[in-house]
Amino acid sequence: PLIAILAGDGIGPEVTAEARRVLDALSLDLTFEEALVGGAAYHATGHPLPPETLDLARRADAILFGAVGDPSCDTLERALRPEQAILGLRKELTLFANLRPAKLFPGLEDASALRPEVAAAIDMVIVRELNGDVYFGEKGMRTTPAGLREGYDVMSYDEAEVTRIAHLGFQTAAKRGGKLCSVDKANVLETSQLWRDVVIELSAQYPQVALSHMYVDNCAMQLVRNPGQFDVIVTGNLFGDILSDQASMCAGSIGMLPSASLDSAGKGLYEPIHGSAPDIAGQGKANPCATILSAAMMLRHSLGNPGAADRIEAAVGKALIGGARTPDLGGTLSTVAMGDAVLAHL
Amino acid sequence: PLIAILAGDGIGPEVTAEARRVLDALSLDLTFEEALVGGAAYHATGHPLPPETLDLARRADAILFGAVGDPSCDTLERALRPEQAILGLRKELTLFANLRPAKLFPGLEDASALRPEVAAAIDMVIVRELNGDVYFGEKGMRTTPAGLREGYDVMSYDEAEVTRIAHLGFQTAAKRGGKLCSVDKANVLETSQLWRDVVIELSAQYPQVALSHMYVDNCAMQLVRNPGQFDVIVTGNLFGDILSDQASMCAGSIGMLPSASLDSAGKGLYEPIHGSAPDIAGQGKANPCATILSAAMMLRHSLGNPGAADRIEAAVGKALIGGARTPDLGGTLSTVAMGDAVLAHL
Ligand SMILES: CC(C)[C@H](C(=O)O)[C@@H](O)C(=O)O
Ligand SMILES: CC(C)[C@H](C(=O)O)[C@@H](O)C(=O)O
Repeated sequence: PLIAILAGDGIGPEVTAEARRVLDALSLDLTFEEALVGGAAYHATGHPLPPETLDLARRADAILFGAVGDPSCDTLERALRPEQAILGLRKELTLFANLRPAKLFPGLEDASALRPEVAAAIDMVIVRELNGDVYFGEKGMRTTPAGLREGYDVMSYDEAEVTRIAHLGFQTAAKRGGKLCSVDKANVLETSQLWRDVVIELSAQYPQVALSHMYVDNCAMQLVRNPGQFDVIVTGNLFGDILSDQASMCAGSIGMLPSASLDSAGKGLYEPIHGSAPDIAGQGKANPCATILSAAMMLRHSLGNPGAADRIEAAVGKALIGGARTPDLGGTLSTVAMGDAVLAHL
Repeated sequence: PLIAILAGDGIGPEVTAEARRVLDALSLDLTFEEALVGGAAYHATGHPLPPETLDLARRADAILFGAVGDPSCDTLERALRPEQAILGLRKELTLFANLRPAKLFPGLEDASALRPEVAAAIDMVIVRELNGDVYFGEKGMRTTPAGLREGYDVMSYDEAEVTRIAHLGFQTAAKRGGKLCSVDKANVLETSQLWRDVVIELSAQYPQVALSHMYVDNCAMQLVRNPGQFDVIVTGNLFGDILSDQASMCAGSIGMLPSASLDSAGKGLYEPIHGSAPDIAGQGKANPCATILSAAMMLRHSLGNPGAADRIEAAVGKALIGGARTPDLGGTLSTVAMGDAVLAHL
């Protein structure tokens, strides 16, 4: 299988290099090809998602992605900013389903700002829709009748978009604890009302899953109060963006959590939840675990090799129990040393 | 001065009754008038915000509001649901500025799911815009060209809307710690880009305030990781809804936190952050402190009586230090007994 490595900006190259080392160590039949993406691609080619990169992503069986985001690009027009690369890949490859597992690794109880007993109970998957919502609706700047500048973005979901992500939510819940919480803001938004209506209609097909609904403001509260109550959360693109970052922090460091963005055939893009962290880029301080665990998700979801995925996850777990800690976890290991610690337990 | 008491649904009547007792005990020159709102008003009159109620709210110098929300109304058309009452009051009275202070009361360190040392550092005000954003844009259900049901909601802000709330954000920061964090999603939303542009333009008028910008997903993370870093947050209606509920839970119980919704002349509606909590309504289990503290905010912001506000806040603080606890705080006091405890320290 062909793996596209899109390392991107900031700490992206450092963390993907460690994930690559771990994959290499498993002696699987993988071919790797690299391409530029994000600010790095913009500076080299004038576009954050150059045609060669998109072409590689299309050809590849799976994509291992680092991070995009580069402060030097903040004043560019929107279409040229690094973030457009990840949004473009999600849309062009119809990667509509973002799986974001959040759980606390044993030994990291002290890394969470939550009380250890609250944090230890976290074990959930957030299923976030990635191809719709206010992210991809019509948007722009216009002038009001009174002559004022106005920014606008249209939020919307149609029933087909909700249906495909809701099915995945139900299926994910059926394979786990059997509880699905659909998060919306149906007391204010028509987009949410349609979302809720469709989820309720589909629930008849999943009698084994206990479905509940929660408003997004309440969910943000419950994720602090008692995150252990959640099994699977399914939600739209914008709410999923906010809640999954919040949940990952509840589970300790954002440096630990992987994600998968899947199309309907199981092809996927795998990336750490954290961003490019320009403040620590190039210093060997980044935690590579989120990217290493993203490689494990890739083996499980796109490459049909759950055994290898289990091995990687176990190795990360053992490294942590053995005391391996990068600075984000209160330790002093470098990015490479953390990679070494995982390799030692593989 | 005339105070409108709109107790509303669920625990609304119980908690406003205690706030009323506290106000009465101060022997101020206040007149009270009550009116129905929310589900209670719908069931009695067929509308959640009847003309008499809106009229009273307009005549009053300030409004003390309980809560709206009634599960028996969930299947009504949107315009008749209880939530429309509070949205309608905010819009009709141009209450564009929502002030939501979040801080941990001494003695409540154990009520937060955050580590005591993390929670104890919380002392912030969230300034949320209340009259615009995706709450009040064009919205509805439509059919796509492919014949699918679609829900949509238009998000927008114009520069005048951003300007008035941003000024309040800067002014609030200038009176406190001098730090303002503006939260948006400018890497994806044009509405946010306009928001950010306007906030930056205004910042020249407030050289004494240190302005920063944060994406909403990162903010949701930082509110867990290190909420003590924030002094004043200014943000739009939707992000403010989510982040202020999250922040309130970080600060312990949502049963403790008040809010003010102000117009440009200082007239305001004062309500607890919590909702109608139908599950515990009528059982004397609700914590009245958030509403009592909302009455204190009313004295400070709309009635020009900061001394009386200080007295109420001090009495609540002393009651808590004295060990008074409703069930949400891990205690057994009833709503009325908690009111008694506050009155005893007034
Ligand atoms: C970089 C940004 C556009 C992106 C998003 O908002 O989806 C990021 O926050 C994420 O969650 O992957
Ligand atoms: C009841 C609801 C419409 C309201 C809102 O979303 O503004 C509430 O959550 C709040 O924060 O006051």
